[in-house]
Amino acid sequence: MGLVVQKFGGTSVGSVERIKHVAGRVIETVENGDQVVVVVSAMGKSTDELVKLANDITDKPSKREMDMLLSTGEQVTISLLSMALQARGYEAVSLTGWQAGIITEACHSNARITKFEEETIKQHLGAGKIVIVAGFQGVTVDDEITTLGRGGSDTTAVALAAGLHADRCDIFTDVTGVFTTDPRVVKNARKLSSISYDEMLELANLGAGVLHPRAVEFAKNYQVKLTVRSSMVEEEGTMIEEEVTVEENLVVRGLAFESNVAKISVCGMPNQIEGLSNLFTTLAANNVNVDIIIQNVIASENTNISFSVLSEKLTETLEVLEQNRETLKFQEILHETGLAKVSIVGSGMISNPGVAGQMFKALSEKGILIKMVSTSEIKVSTVVDQKDMVLAVETLHEEFQLDKVKVTV
Amino acid sequence: MGLVVQKFGGTSVGSVERIKHVAGRVIETVENGDQVVVVVSAMGKSTDELVKLANDITDKPSKREMDMLLSTGEQVTISLLSMALQARGYEAVSLTGWQAGIITEACHSNARITKFEEETIKQHLGAGKIVIVAGFQGVTVDDEITTLGRGGSDTTAVALAAGLHADRCDIFTDVTGVFTTDPRVVKNARKLSSISYDEMLELANLGAGVLHPRAVEFAKNYQVKLTVRSSMVEEEGTMIEEEVTVEENLVVRGLAFESNVAKISVCGMPNQIEGLSNLFTTLAANNVNVDIIIQNVIASENTNISFSVLSEKLTETLEVLEQNRETLKFQEILHETGLAKVSIVGSGMISNPGVAGQMFKALSEKGILIKMVSTSEIKVSTVVDQKDMVLAVETLHEEFQLDKVKVTV
Repeated sequence: MGLVVQKFGGTSVGSVERIKHVAGRVIETVENGDQVVVVVSAMGKSTDELVKLANDITDKPSKREMDMLLSTGEQVTISLLSMALQARGYEAVSLTGWQAGIITEACHSNARITKFEEETIKQHLGAGKIVIVAGFQGVTVDDEITTLGRGGSDTTAVALAAGLHADRCDIFTDVTGVFTTDPRVVKNARKLSSISYDEMLELANLGAGVLHPRAVEFAKNYQVKLTVRSSMVEEEGTMIEEEVTVEENLVVRGLAFESNVAKISVCGMPNQIEGLSNLFTTLAANNVNVDIIIQNVIASENTNISFSVLSEKLTETLEVLEQNRETLKFQEILHETGLAKVSIVGSGMISNPGVAGQMFKALSEKGILIKMVSTSEIKVSTVVDQKDMVLAVETLHEEFQLDKVKVTV
Repeated sequence: MGLVVQKFGGTSVGSVERIKHVAGRVIETVENGDQVVVVVSAMGKSTDELVKLANDITDKPSKREMDMLLSTGEQVTISLLSMALQARGYEAVSLTGWQAGIITEACHSNARITKFEEETIKQHLGAGKIVIVAGFQGVTVDDEITTLGRGGSDTTAVALAAGLHADRCDIFTDVTGVFTTDPRVVKNARKLSSISYDEMLELANLGAGVLHPRAVEFAKNYQVKLTVRSSMVEEEGTMIEEEVTVEENLVVRGLAFESNVAKISVCGMPNQIEGLSNLFTTLAANNVNVDIIIQNVIASENTNISFSVLSEKLTETLEVLEQNRETLKFQEILHETGLAKVSIVGSGMISNPGVAGQMFKALSEKGILIKMVSTSEIKVSTVVDQKDMVLAVETLHEEFQLDKVKVTV
């Protein structure tokens, strides 16, 4: 008998019918002889409705009261799913975040889990019950209700799997797994049978959007075997683990892309030791999230620094820079919009130095101009014109034969 | 500086606009120099919507999961009211039942409050905050969420007022106070300026419906000064306290009535010492709530016992009796439906033995047949044909001059 944690997101529990369907999926696992802990999100649109209520009251609701309000969403789902399981003759018990022992830091709307007190869940499992836990929420040591921010239910599921030493953690979602790239854009995108934590982390950070980075990080730290699979379709998902099943092509595992990128260049900054630090601490203090950063010092007193931000943050970022012109001592700011980021990810890159070159060559052969480059050990990111984005993705998908890869084991 | 507990029911917080209005009422009290603890119910129709969700899942949801589901209703209201107060520049903090220290017995859907741990609320009050507490809900010593049953938010408010030694407890509702009888039926019904706990208890039990009996009982036990008043209209309400302002007419304070009453007569039961006990413990074991009971032994071996139940419980009650025919040893069951109960209530009756007679005479002069009578120290109840109910109420309201009473102090 194993122990499995299963997580179902908002779409999967979006209606009474879907909740009944989820109950069916849970029962399959139970009938398979496993103990099951289920983590659920709020029903589909219910969070939006709650946010609307708050906004009808005030345009600046406090984070504490928003957590109080939003955490009711999952509480509704857990009770309904528990009822659905009981109606089919299974013993089930629902638990809110605080009842389940999910302790977080004292930070509203985006708290990190600091501790998991497993006694209550273990007791219910020991009594033969299916345990249903409200995702996305926790409680501080001072009994304040907190929420975990975007992708919080994934994190809850992984934290429970880690703390309970579960055999695996299944993340049920509205896609059938992790793909080589977004199948809505590239027809030949292929579902991966497995991927490593690090690769998933790069893909998640790069906007693949299947799993929240914090959840993947947590899974990596505690070596939780994660599976991403569909709640609607009965089919194998993608396994996320430390050691990946050997596939023919080890070099590039997936492709991520993101549109609406803007590039800002701060020109003529004095080439002082604290210049770079001043610039980015100023931006961070003003909540500007910077992505790719490039500095190129070409033997002069001055330096030019370029970085990318989301287009929607462009105006705000330019304002922050202007307000700090005196401190930062730059001469000029240039900016460019209508850009996109295209990245290749794969742990095999570490030992394959030619990959970046192969990428640039493939793009240049299609006449795609690369405007920025940034690399890590397992990824290469390029910034291109937004109009070239899809072509770049398709080109690279073919270049690295992502559609053709076969598992050899 | 005093401490006031204010309770607002579901209608009073039924929309965002109404919640903002409630915030205004709370602020008035704060500006008056008082500390305020607010207790709120779920927004208007929200409980019905949650019940519908549960019924779409199963027709027999477990009580534990219903408590888990329904308790989200008040949690939504407390966060919104807190936001509304904060938006107007006041410090406010919302607390669920478990956060507010409302400890109950381990009984779902209808739990009694066993303990109130006042530390958290006192701390927030001490920090100058308006404290907003979710009514109707509590938590067991084992961290299970419970609800308090019908009128539960009233009970929460009274329990908090008692535990915090509040100067008064204001129950804001959709009526302007406690009336001599239902003003929708009797045009001349008059709002009482004050009424005693015992009188209110009789009126509440008799279906006047303004305040839940359990809340009144609690208030009496802890001598909490209760006021019932309108959340919409700015006007004096009714004070409920031990010693009532002297009014000209001390004898009858109010009139209660209830339709859909059925009478059941169990005939020819052996006149044994345990007969009565057997009958009513059997009914109680089957959850039949019996109201008026009449036994009349007329020097024979057998006895006839009559009692009243709500019409909707008639079929079930008859079935229970038939199933226990052998044990109970009765010969025959008779029943009658289409009845109503009309009662007069007033603590002055204790010293006025003629009141019952005056009541019967007034009714008989209008040709109203009395089918059952039951009395307590401060009330006389009669069962009449339902078609005579309104006439009986109007007749008695006039007979005891309830429309004309003036406060003399």
